[in-house]
Amino acid sequence: MQATQTRVARTFRKTTETFAAGAKTLAQRYFVSPEIFAREQANIFSKQWVLVGHQSQIAQAGDYFTADVARESLIIVRDKRGEIHGFYNVCRHRGSRLVENRNGHVSAIQCPYHAWTYGLDGPLLGAPHMDDVPGFDKADYPLHPVHLALWEGFIFVNLADSLTPLDKWLAPLTGKFFRWNLPALRSAKRIAYDVQANWKLIFENYSECYHCAGVHPELSKISPSDSAENDLTEGPFLGGFMRIASDKSLTMSSKTCALPVGDFGNEDFRFVFYYSIFPNMLLSLHPDYVMVHQLEAQSPERTLLLCDWFFHPEAFKRSDFDPDDAIKFWDMVNRQDWHVCELSQQGISSRAYKPGPYSARESIPAAWDDYYLRQMS
Amino acid sequence: MQATQTRVARTFRKTTETFAAGAKTLAQRYFVSPEIFAREQANIFSKQWVLVGHQSQIAQAGDYFTADVARESLIIVRDKRGEIHGFYNVCRHRGSRLVENRNGHVSAIQCPYHAWTYGLDGPLLGAPHMDDVPGFDKADYPLHPVHLALWEGFIFVNLADSLTPLDKWLAPLTGKFFRWNLPALRSAKRIAYDVQANWKLIFENYSECYHCAGVHPELSKISPSDSAENDLTEGPFLGGFMRIASDKSLTMSSKTCALPVGDFGNEDFRFVFYYSIFPNMLLSLHPDYVMVHQLEAQSPERTLLLCDWFFHPEAFKRSDFDPDDAIKFWDMVNRQDWHVCELSQQGISSRAYKPGPYSARESIPAAWDDYYLRQMS
Amino acid sequence: MQATQTRVARTFRKTTETFAAGAKTLAQRYFVSPEIFAREQANIFSKQWVLVGHQSQIAQAGDYFTADVARESLIIVRDKRGEIHGFYNVCRHRGSRLVENRNGHVSAIQCPYHAWTYGLDGPLLGAPHMDDVPGFDKADYPLHPVHLALWEGFIFVNLADSLTPLDKWLAPLTGKFFRWNLPALRSAKRIAYDVQANWKLIFENYSECYHCAGVHPELSKISPSDSAENDLTEGPFLGGFMRIASDKSLTMSSKTCALPVGDFGNEDFRFVFYYSIFPNMLLSLHPDYVMVHQLEAQSPERTLLLCDWFFHPEAFKRSDFDPDDAIKFWDMVNRQDWHVCELSQQGISSRAYKPGPYSARESIPAAWDDYYLRQMS
Repeated sequence: MQATQTRVARTFRKTTETFAAGAKTLAQRYFVSPEIFAREQANIFSKQWVLVGHQSQIAQAGDYFTADVARESLIIVRDKRGEIHGFYNVCRHRGSRLVENRNGHVSAIQCPYHAWTYGLDGPLLGAPHMDDVPGFDKADYPLHPVHLALWEGFIFVNLADSLTPLDKWLAPLTGKFFRWNLPALRSAKRIAYDVQANWKLIFENYSECYHCAGVHPELSKISPSDSAENDLTEGPFLGGFMRIASDKSLTMSSKTCALPVGDFGNEDFRFVFYYSIFPNMLLSLHPDYVMVHQLEAQSPERTLLLCDWFFHPEAFKRSDFDPDDAIKFWDMVNRQDWHVCELSQQGISSRAYKPGPYSARESIPAAWDDYYLRQMS
Repeated sequence: MQATQTRVARTFRKTTETFAAGAKTLAQRYFVSPEIFAREQANIFSKQWVLVGHQSQIAQAGDYFTADVARESLIIVRDKRGEIHGFYNVCRHRGSRLVENRNGHVSAIQCPYHAWTYGLDGPLLGAPHMDDVPGFDKADYPLHPVHLALWEGFIFVNLADSLTPLDKWLAPLTGKFFRWNLPALRSAKRIAYDVQANWKLIFENYSECYHCAGVHPELSKISPSDSAENDLTEGPFLGGFMRIASDKSLTMSSKTCALPVGDFGNEDFRFVFYYSIFPNMLLSLHPDYVMVHQLEAQSPERTLLLCDWFFHPEAFKRSDFDPDDAIKFWDMVNRQDWHVCELSQQGISSRAYKPGPYSARESIPAAWDDYYLRQMS
Repeated sequence: MQATQTRVARTFRKTTETFAAGAKTLAQRYFVSPEIFAREQANIFSKQWVLVGHQSQIAQAGDYFTADVARESLIIVRDKRGEIHGFYNVCRHRGSRLVENRNGHVSAIQCPYHAWTYGLDGPLLGAPHMDDVPGFDKADYPLHPVHLALWEGFIFVNLADSLTPLDKWLAPLTGKFFRWNLPALRSAKRIAYDVQANWKLIFENYSECYHCAGVHPELSKISPSDSAENDLTEGPFLGGFMRIASDKSLTMSSKTCALPVGDFGNEDFRFVFYYSIFPNMLLSLHPDYVMVHQLEAQSPERTLLLCDWFFHPEAFKRSDFDPDDAIKFWDMVNRQDWHVCELSQQGISSRAYKPGPYSARESIPAAWDDYYLRQMS
């Protein structure tokens, strides 16, 4: 155990945090104001790299899924050369939504209204009866593209015109997660949660375990709430790790439910890593699975969350593979969290609410707020 | 067949359309803006003649129905002399809604709150305990009337104070539909559709058959989508006709389902006529029935549609009368249309939407947009 | 009967009303405007004493209920010394809602999020891990209190900073209701009604029996609609009394359903008293029960009503106690009222609505409107 802890410490060195004594929670308007929400959509979700899924969701040419970013429906599709593209889900003729299903497989993208047809990489290939229109040129009407890039197998899009390349943006995380084989993993299950709380409350909740003893009795038994150590303590990427009790796993049975996702050798690798990746990804790395939350802010008071449980591709073939053991566990813990987030939303809406004092155990929420405010100024 | 076509051509002469090459769909704001919607309610639905029903719905004195126009509930009622009146559904005492049912029969209009009673032609006849009020005169408190007039048996109202008489407004259509016996027809069925799309998308959809091949495979088999010819090509009344395949009818069975609605003599009258009558009527004339859509714009993104299927009054008495054969057919086609209208609404709401190019087959939608824009300027 | 009437007349002397001939109903904006609604929330519901319940709901130390006033959730709780307090339902740490249930029993108020704990009289008693925060002092973070006071056993709160004491505000009613033992009564039933009408329509409806003959045939049989006499005819407290037919009670069976709530001696006390107490209480005093309506304005077009039926505490022990007989009766009458209030809301929203003339039988609604307008100016 001592040896393992040393190895973990090499990669994930605990930072000496300089907790800003006197830090307080955000003012009420950040949680209820439609104007602030509109500014977030413009300044953050329409300008930054936003998680939309994982490459394993569209393994074959012609596979697609749709994603909602800043209230826009996007088509994420793999073309015939294997490249992944992102397009606005809007026909260039009369504006019709092109794709209705959440996912599927196509050989081309055809509008259901007047049958205009686009290639998987965007060009307009066919437009019936348009040859009669003087000056009409198909080359003028490709699908509207969005910037798209991959990181560790995860697909990110960016609606901005000019932007920092994704690998430069995520440079601080380069190599940090190589052990977990993220590009190769596959999701066994996605659960969608519709939470009646501001999206920032979800981040603040994820970023501290001060609440764990009271809110998560089952989790706290397996992973002690006072074992949290942070190694990313400022900026857009925040988090750290917690110990898992010996011989245990974060599952309903407390036993491991799948092959290790990474190559941890013979070491007794008993840590869970929690990172928030601004502005819409929560990455929870366990020895036997990786949980990812993808957030979509719907309104000041409502957030949609897509939660995936990723496993090693080999795990799916094993007779002792029991993904539900992990899924049920975190589904329970998730719902405990959303409940207190909803209670916070309700109380913060009161005229009596004033920003309250963060404790030292809430240094990451305080750092998250700090980074957020800089994006909004 | 040739002879018939000639006769049709005499009344419904195909116009040489001067399609405005370069015509594009309307800008996004016309489909999503609450301000534009409010302007439409004020400039169009509160100032123009609006279809509310057919005289056959209130055949007897005392028969009434309620109609919603520009978010106002109106009472349409036939008085004891047989005249039809329109009133705001509001008591002059404390403002209560007077009539709750969609239709019914009354001998007078009595308020359910304090029993003030009005005659079917509007005057306040009884107001209990009001005699004690100094200066109170029943003559000062008749029901608030709205302008109402009839055309071909259809009832139109107009909320404006000053207006063009209905017959003058509809003069371009005088005599055009005499063959179909419209004043005498009766509806066998009304279906209400709640469509999540702007009302203008319904008109644009109705006004072209470019989409028919892909969206309406059943319809296209009976009435070829390339047979459309237009004879009204600019202004508030637009449309034309399409051929019906020999020996067929627009029904599920492809066979005629009722007596002809009009006197077509011995000719093999195989045409269906489609006209849009600004701002809320769609008139679809078949040999064996007449379908009428009555639109109520509810919000920028929602339209209520009342669809009636009218038949010859004698048809109802015949043992081979099978109105469901027509109703089911067009109910299917209607739903196909509403679906693509809803897809358009979704896509047009995107920041990526830009007005797209109309084809020559969309000359009527382009003409409709043109007339609409002139009403809004 | 004559003797009784004389005794009633001593306490509840009928006022010679000076009905303002020409009084009309309020203008449309008072029933539909969000700006007026916001002004009501600020000027009336956030500044005046508002009914939230009865002391019998929290008989023991630690008993609490939550109440909604001006869109604020409040905790009403009895402390260990027996005193009743009102607090905003908001934690001082991160703003979480503290109490979720509508009522219950606690020994302290503990936040479900991070377990901050408050005494029943408000002070912060425990805040885990906050000792590490430099300068943190629990004394700075008590629950936010609201003013609270009792009248005749009913609990009122006031969200204002400076205010008239409750007993001074209600001084005109001092001693008026002593016969009914209000502080000692207990509610047998609460029914919540969600009414799609402005809250003022509820008051106007309650304040006249002009509508009774048509709307309440069952009520009118037992209590003649023309027997109404008023003894409070201007200001914030309005109402009067009506006769109950000999040997009858306002119940489904027309028979008394419980012990008298007060000491009416041997007299045949056949009166029902109806008073509106501005801005959210309706007090209906029967010989055998007391009905109380507590209003919560939700929006210009929606009001939540909590209706309680109070009985003598001894009545509950009697074998012939039949509270449902009264509850079902008034539940029926209530729903008849809400229905016409909703019809009024609908009609008043029309562009055709104009203020209409009040009759002499509507002097109390006219007086209520008059007082209301003075609060809004």
